[in-house]
Amino acid sequence: MLNQKLLSEINKDEEFTLFLLINKYETKTSKTGSSYLSLELRDKSSVISAYYWENYEGLLKDIEQNKIVKVNGVLQDFNGLPQIKIKRIRVATDEDKVSVEDFLPVSQRVLEIMIQEFNDVVNSIHNQYLRKLLEEIFSGKRLNDFFNVPAGSNWHHAYLHGLLEHTLEVVKICELMCEIHPEINRDLLITGALLHDFGKTQELNYDASFNYTDKGKLIGHITICALEVEKAILKVENFPEDLKNQLIHLILSHQGKLEYASPVIPKTLEAIVLYHADELSSKSNAYKYAIKSEMNKNGRWTKFIKLADTSLYIPDVNNEFNNSFEEDSI
Amino acid sequence: MLNQKLLSEINKDEEFTLFLLINKYETKTSKTGSSYLSLELRDKSSVISAYYWENYEGLLKDIEQNKIVKVNGVLQDFNGLPQIKIKRIRVATDEDKVSVEDFLPVSQRVLEIMIQEFNDVVNSIHNQYLRKLLEEIFSGKRLNDFFNVPAGSNWHHAYLHGLLEHTLEVVKICELMCEIHPEINRDLLITGALLHDFGKTQELNYDASFNYTDKGKLIGHITICALEVEKAILKVENFPEDLKNQLIHLILSHQGKLEYASPVIPKTLEAIVLYHADELSSKSNAYKYAIKSEMNKNGRWTKFIKLADTSLYIPDVNNEFNNSFEEDSI
Amino acid sequence: MLNQKLLSEINKDEEFTLFLLINKYETKTSKTGSSYLSLELRDKSSVISAYYWENYEGLLKDIEQNKIVKVNGVLQDFNGLPQIKIKRIRVATDEDKVSVEDFLPVSQRVLEIMIQEFNDVVNSIHNQYLRKLLEEIFSGKRLNDFFNVPAGSNWHHAYLHGLLEHTLEVVKICELMCEIHPEINRDLLITGALLHDFGKTQELNYDASFNYTDKGKLIGHITICALEVEKAILKVENFPEDLKNQLIHLILSHQGKLEYASPVIPKTLEAIVLYHADELSSKSNAYKYAIKSEMNKNGRWTKFIKLADTSLYIPDVNNEFNNSFEEDSI
Amino acid sequence: MLNQKLLSEINKDEEFTLFLLINKYETKTSKTGSSYLSLELRDKSSVISAYYWENYEGLLKDIEQNKIVKVNGVLQDFNGLPQIKIKRIRVATDEDKVSVEDFLPVSQRVLEIMIQEFNDVVNSIHNQYLRKLLEEIFSGKRLNDFFNVPAGSNWHHAYLHGLLEHTLEVVKICELMCEIHPEINRDLLITGALLHDFGKTQELNYDASFNYTDKGKLIGHITICALEVEKAILKVENFPEDLKNQLIHLILSHQGKLEYASPVIPKTLEAIVLYHADELSSKSNAYKYAIKSEMNKNGRWTKFIKLADTSLYIPDVNNEFNNSFEEDSI
Amino acid sequence: MLNQKLLSEINKDEEFTLFLLINKYETKTSKTGSSYLSLELRDKSSVISAYYWENYEGLLKDIEQNKIVKVNGVLQDFNGLPQIKIKRIRVATDEDKVSVEDFLPVSQRVLEIMIQEFNDVVNSIHNQYLRKLLEEIFSGKRLNDFFNVPAGSNWHHAYLHGLLEHTLEVVKICELMCEIHPEINRDLLITGALLHDFGKTQELNYDASFNYTDKGKLIGHITICALEVEKAILKVENFPEDLKNQLIHLILSHQGKLEYASPVIPKTLEAIVLYHADELSSKSNAYKYAIKSEMNKNGRWTKFIKLADTSLYIPDVNNEFNNSFEEDSI
Amino acid sequence: MLNQKLLSEINKDEEFTLFLLINKYETKTSKTGSSYLSLELRDKSSVISAYYWENYEGLLKDIEQNKIVKVNGVLQDFNGLPQIKIKRIRVATDEDKVSVEDFLPVSQRVLEIMIQEFNDVVNSIHNQYLRKLLEEIFSGKRLNDFFNVPAGSNWHHAYLHGLLEHTLEVVKICELMCEIHPEINRDLLITGALLHDFGKTQELNYDASFNYTDKGKLIGHITICALEVEKAILKVENFPEDLKNQLIHLILSHQGKLEYASPVIPKTLEAIVLYHADELSSKSNAYKYAIKSEMNKNGRWTKFIKLADTSLYIPDVNNEFNNSFEEDSI
Repeated sequence: MLNQKLLSEINKDEEFTLFLLINKYETKTSKTGSSYLSLELRDKSSVISAYYWENYEGLLKDIEQNKIVKVNGVLQDFNGLPQIKIKRIRVATDEDKVSVEDFLPVSQRVLEIMIQEFNDVVNSIHNQYLRKLLEEIFSGKRLNDFFNVPAGSNWHHAYLHGLLEHTLEVVKICELMCEIHPEINRDLLITGALLHDFGKTQELNYDASFNYTDKGKLIGHITICALEVEKAILKVENFPEDLKNQLIHLILSHQGKLEYASPVIPKTLEAIVLYHADELSSKSNAYKYAIKSEMNKNGRWTKFIKLADTSLYIPDVNNEFNNSFEEDSI
Repeated sequence: MLNQKLLSEINKDEEFTLFLLINKYETKTSKTGSSYLSLELRDKSSVISAYYWENYEGLLKDIEQNKIVKVNGVLQDFNGLPQIKIKRIRVATDEDKVSVEDFLPVSQRVLEIMIQEFNDVVNSIHNQYLRKLLEEIFSGKRLNDFFNVPAGSNWHHAYLHGLLEHTLEVVKICELMCEIHPEINRDLLITGALLHDFGKTQELNYDASFNYTDKGKLIGHITICALEVEKAILKVENFPEDLKNQLIHLILSHQGKLEYASPVIPKTLEAIVLYHADELSSKSNAYKYAIKSEMNKNGRWTKFIKLADTSLYIPDVNNEFNNSFEEDSI
Repeated sequence: MLNQKLLSEINKDEEFTLFLLINKYETKTSKTGSSYLSLELRDKSSVISAYYWENYEGLLKDIEQNKIVKVNGVLQDFNGLPQIKIKRIRVATDEDKVSVEDFLPVSQRVLEIMIQEFNDVVNSIHNQYLRKLLEEIFSGKRLNDFFNVPAGSNWHHAYLHGLLEHTLEVVKICELMCEIHPEINRDLLITGALLHDFGKTQELNYDASFNYTDKGKLIGHITICALEVEKAILKVENFPEDLKNQLIHLILSHQGKLEYASPVIPKTLEAIVLYHADELSSKSNAYKYAIKSEMNKNGRWTKFIKLADTSLYIPDVNNEFNNSFEEDSI
Repeated sequence: MLNQKLLSEINKDEEFTLFLLINKYETKTSKTGSSYLSLELRDKSSVISAYYWENYEGLLKDIEQNKIVKVNGVLQDFNGLPQIKIKRIRVATDEDKVSVEDFLPVSQRVLEIMIQEFNDVVNSIHNQYLRKLLEEIFSGKRLNDFFNVPAGSNWHHAYLHGLLEHTLEVVKICELMCEIHPEINRDLLITGALLHDFGKTQELNYDASFNYTDKGKLIGHITICALEVEKAILKVENFPEDLKNQLIHLILSHQGKLEYASPVIPKTLEAIVLYHADELSSKSNAYKYAIKSEMNKNGRWTKFIKLADTSLYIPDVNNEFNNSFEEDSI
Repeated sequence: MLNQKLLSEINKDEEFTLFLLINKYETKTSKTGSSYLSLELRDKSSVISAYYWENYEGLLKDIEQNKIVKVNGVLQDFNGLPQIKIKRIRVATDEDKVSVEDFLPVSQRVLEIMIQEFNDVVNSIHNQYLRKLLEEIFSGKRLNDFFNVPAGSNWHHAYLHGLLEHTLEVVKICELMCEIHPEINRDLLITGALLHDFGKTQELNYDASFNYTDKGKLIGHITICALEVEKAILKVENFPEDLKNQLIHLILSHQGKLEYASPVIPKTLEAIVLYHADELSSKSNAYKYAIKSEMNKNGRWTKFIKLADTSLYIPDVNNEFNNSFEEDSI
Repeated sequence: MLNQKLLSEINKDEEFTLFLLINKYETKTSKTGSSYLSLELRDKSSVISAYYWENYEGLLKDIEQNKIVKVNGVLQDFNGLPQIKIKRIRVATDEDKVSVEDFLPVSQRVLEIMIQEFNDVVNSIHNQYLRKLLEEIFSGKRLNDFFNVPAGSNWHHAYLHGLLEHTLEVVKICELMCEIHPEINRDLLITGALLHDFGKTQELNYDASFNYTDKGKLIGHITICALEVEKAILKVENFPEDLKNQLIHLILSHQGKLEYASPVIPKTLEAIVLYHADELSSKSNAYKYAIKSEMNKNGRWTKFIKLADTSLYIPDVNNEFNNSFEEDSI
């Protein structure tokens, strides 16, 4: 595990030496005709653009996307955005003992505990059809992808293991609703909660950056999940037709509205609970990280956030009544 | 084949004797306390409410939904809507030689010709993966349902064989677009056109009235179709992944907008063509029948039509330049 | 406490004798010129229209809105809606020992337990400004109204003590979110949860039927609550300005979107949590009761529900995997 | 009062010497590594960015936001936007006899006349409760703020005394409507017109630039005004409850639609008049200034204006029939 | 001029004898099989349905739509709506000295005064092209229609001379805006105000009831007006092209938004003023009449009004501060 | 006809010598104070920005917008967009034998064939009123404009003769619909199809670049067309009123929805067919060119396209089943 300062901790005008991952790179020409190397570099905490004016031709034959480089540079400000002026740069070697995962953001929860919680939830399902279906789906490469994939490319739970973390939150909220409403079919709802975003395992790449796959863009994670469930059910003998329809309905309707890309809207008690539990988990996480990522800046307001349609208020942690964020900023 | 006058041809205050299908029935009490039998009766052309005041108790043990009765009655007007006052009524027997299909609306095109056109289209597909997929899907009970089901419960092509008629129209429009744009992948587009509404075979009942099934309401014909295609592709060896994604994209996006219940919007040339070809076929049919069904009434405007968000103008067929509707009113 | 059969348990054509509350009444003339008394009667379970043809003039001088009557009648069906044909009717007397509350729907949770939970939550607030504010607001007549008022006139928690039940659910969901996100300012969020719908105490009448007040229609419960909090804060010495702004923001933004009548949208982490917690509690309750109220009818679907924009699916409790609703139908 | 050329009158490539206000400033690094001082400077007429390459370190310890500087520079064009190249710059001293207000845009109406009109309107209110309320609200610092604050940060009446100017226009329009409709409650409507945007005194800062306050963003001027009115009414003995509800309704509903941030829509005759009078005053002012600020440019169309969702047509003042703008361009 | 009690002044159960206009009529059959005559009758104040059970066959050959009858009857209530039980009825003769206009609602302003105001406005236009255009358009039958037609079928200014009354209000509001903003091209704006709804002269019938014409429904008053102006301009020599475009733009954009059926949105200062002046005049009038028509009923709220999307508050005229409506109720 | 390499065929860093058209030009100053000439140059295939640092003052007196220059330069990349660094440049002379049309994009269909098809369609109209109207409209300069103008500035059929090409496609689709639905009034529909976008002849300039005219922005092509048809009908004796209303309705409603700038929505069978035929032709063309213009780039997706609200998928022409685009890329 790589142990170095985070990009987010570097101050303006500070000089640093860090391993960083190449997101993309390109040669460019300035207006005055000189050419230089333009890169986008990342670590766990940030993605920042960089440039290198020195004779970079020797470097060009070695670097490629998703390779790791060791960089000595200075953090500058360009039109209000941070930018790295590279002084020296070399490609990392085996002896540097660094790997791609060291540079991707990752859930702050402990993976093993999340897996334990996940297994406990699966084991709590009494309905044998649903239990077998879950065991069929959550196995082999599919299970591995499910444990690792982020829940999104940059909005909520947008880090490794993010889908698992999000799924467990939705399950917990649903379990609370089952306590309040004994009328809810718990096995059905919890199975739906476990599966609702499973299609993201095929919708998103997470090997070096978080991008949507062709299949993800053409089909979408909602339908991908329905197709996987339909095929898995073929392997569960005598799976009841009515139960299948209700379960697939849960998956299809979990985004709640047609304009949010659900092809049907919630028509069962379990479906309306799942929709709002999903909203609660995803929006809370998204707003928290949007605020955290700008807490160290000046001012009480984040930049305008398109998905929230507003700037967010950053509480003043020096006020006694506001200090919750204080101790565990990113 | 039953040969009798159509309900739509009966005039106000006219007495008639006709076989009719019972859509539903119920005993009711009038405000003054008398009880009577209230029914909804249909033939190919109309659905009209009816009532029967005489001692109907004997009748009650014989009638049920979707049974055929022979009715002697008078057509009256109640608050602007037609209503049948039944004088005599009896349940039809085998000797009457009538069957349920005699009372359902049916496409005005000849079924055999449509089936021939359909087979010709399937045979025109050169891509072997798509050809095999079509042969897999369009077989057995599935093919039979596809030939018979209406395309909707009451808007466009809402009659027996309606889905087949609609599908062939969409295919013809798509073929014209292939002539205009050689860049279109014809095999892909025509396969998409043939399959786009196939899910309606499971979304709609058409045995005696046209109703949505539980599965239809919980899952919807778009996802039903995607699930069927996914399973059928399991039986076509080596079906290319990219081709599958593009085909399922065609099915998912054919309603064009998220708010029209497509979970993805059109992202390929073929998808945008299919969406608008479907709109053109369905809206033209819907508006034509909405106008036809009110041509014999007074006035130049139909009643307000919710799905069109307007009344429609009924051309005056006595004007020489307007007489297209004249010779073939329903 | 009145102990009699519920209106919802009476079958069609069944004769019954029950105490019922008069929602409204009017004399009417039939088309044939006779006049009669038309009433709307209610008990805890239903509101049903009724009529009385006998010489009702003597009755007229005694009855008025919100009075209780003893009715002997028969349940009939009029155009698909239930209707009571009254045979005999008299105004209730003191000796009948019935009171208005016996005829209003009421929360199924035990009031004392809810009050205990409420007090525990208030006592858990450590911030002294917020604690004092809560004690100021929740006192005297205001507290009494808060414990009794429904949370709405006919959608969610639309019964006596409904606001208290709803508030406790929102608090529980918020507490779960505080466990997941230690960054949340718990005292602020829980105070906001306790107060968010407090304005409904002035927005709704609940003495005999649940109607909106003039003030409720002209001002709305969101602004009413903000005005009450502003005035109560005048009585808490040195209440911090920033804390006040954040708290009033929580109240104003809790409906989440401008088009849902919030004058500002959520701009803090606490505000986004409160909005979705409120949605989860209110929608779950509303859908549950919408399904429950039609479970005894034929068919697997409720009538179309405008606020849900759909019919809801009624699970078949004879299926082993669906039987959660079974034991505690209303 | 400062007497110097306006920034809007400087031509491209013209050299000038002017006092200007620092809106903000920052040191930046160019791509080629040199550092320079980047500023945003304003006078009454414009806000323009500027840069200074010379040895600016000495300057840095003296300048700060909202300070005034004397600048010798040249107006250049950078990517279609004006930009000042600073040659010499120094901080203004007491002897320069300039003050911040000299650099903020200001209403073109004479303040004293507006105040006289305002007083006349207040004095015309006969209803003693409303009269006392107005005298309570419009006093002390509140009155001073009301006379000075702009009505917005950059759309309509976005200059000093702008709220007063806007308020008087709305009053005049409302008075005309009272002449047309004697049914209107004049005292109520005019009081509502005087108060409708009063909350902007707390929503906007206007000391050196026009920015939204934290309270403004968290609460909004509509609710701020309602809270102030509620508290002021506490000081007016026996203020009738019905009158208070109608008045607060006027304030809350004056933006006309929920999606425009009014928590209730207009439900009284006075409310619908106030909403449209406000629209008429604000939109006319906004469009006039949007056109004026681009009249000297080439072309008959302004740039695209987001809040108008279009470019605006600039009439050709050389056409005799179009010359209204001619004599009094800004 | 007919001098008789208004239908709106008749109380429930009151017997009366009045001349009334037949809006429509029809023979109907009751559920019990008897037939009767159903009519819709109107005077200036109301439209009410009526029925006549006696032997009406003799009457049938004499009555027709838009004929006047003398009716002796009783006002009853049927499902909350008023209904006339006719006892005696006969067709009016020449000797009765009644005419259709006596039964249509009419502006409460004096026609001659409005015509004088209209002429003064036309005469105030200095631009000779616009002046000639106005004289061309407002002449002969077109002028007569303009003076008589209502401004709508049932929303605002929905009575004879309503378009003239509405036009003069819009002109007055525009003139006030010209005083506030000397930059406005007064001749252009006032000409636009005079013409903006002129197309309604062809969009609406007003001979006996206010209905939309076929042309009105197919083309709409906005385009009708543009077509008339275009043709009239052919008769004004050398009408400047730019002036024509700006004038037609005023007409086309006066409904302000595409979704309100304007094919272009306001892009000039005059256009934005005209749009909001039209809104202010029409909405004020509509809300006033909606409130007035229910002032005599019980309760402080009108029925739900679809075009206002709300019920409206009826002020209590017994409150001293609310009594503006008092003296001149309809 | 100019015969030279297309701009779209030049590779990055390639040096070239080409005649190009000046779209616009301007002198600018760089941040370091040097001044240079900035231009926008075009040929049939692309519009690219360019810059020239050498002593350009001599050039300035000769160049102007829409003049042709001969350029020797290099294609570079600036922030991901292509940019021309000009080495040498001179204004073209008569001897160069180049003209403006050589530099505008043009339909790929043969003009003479399109004109023949157009004439055949006009000749197929039997109704003499419509035939004469078409001959009146399509004559002289109007016909010439109709043959040359593009159908839009940059979305569909955005090239010379584009309106003619688009019109013929719409006619073909309408003719297919006439075959399917004999109820359609063919003469009316085809006349509407020929005229529907005719207003674009006045809405768009196409002399050197494709821009909207003042009239186009103030009136819009829909109303322009209606005005032209109205005036042309004045010259056709006895043109039936009903036919005129239906025809103008077709023109007005052909964009299908109010929010798409149609002032009325389709209310006839012909209008709904025309709307969807127009959509099918325009969207297919727009998507095809959007894909084609990016086929040579890396990646399977185009850039985000605002009017499609998505990126588009670029099929892999190396897949046998996808090769339709292969042979005729732009």
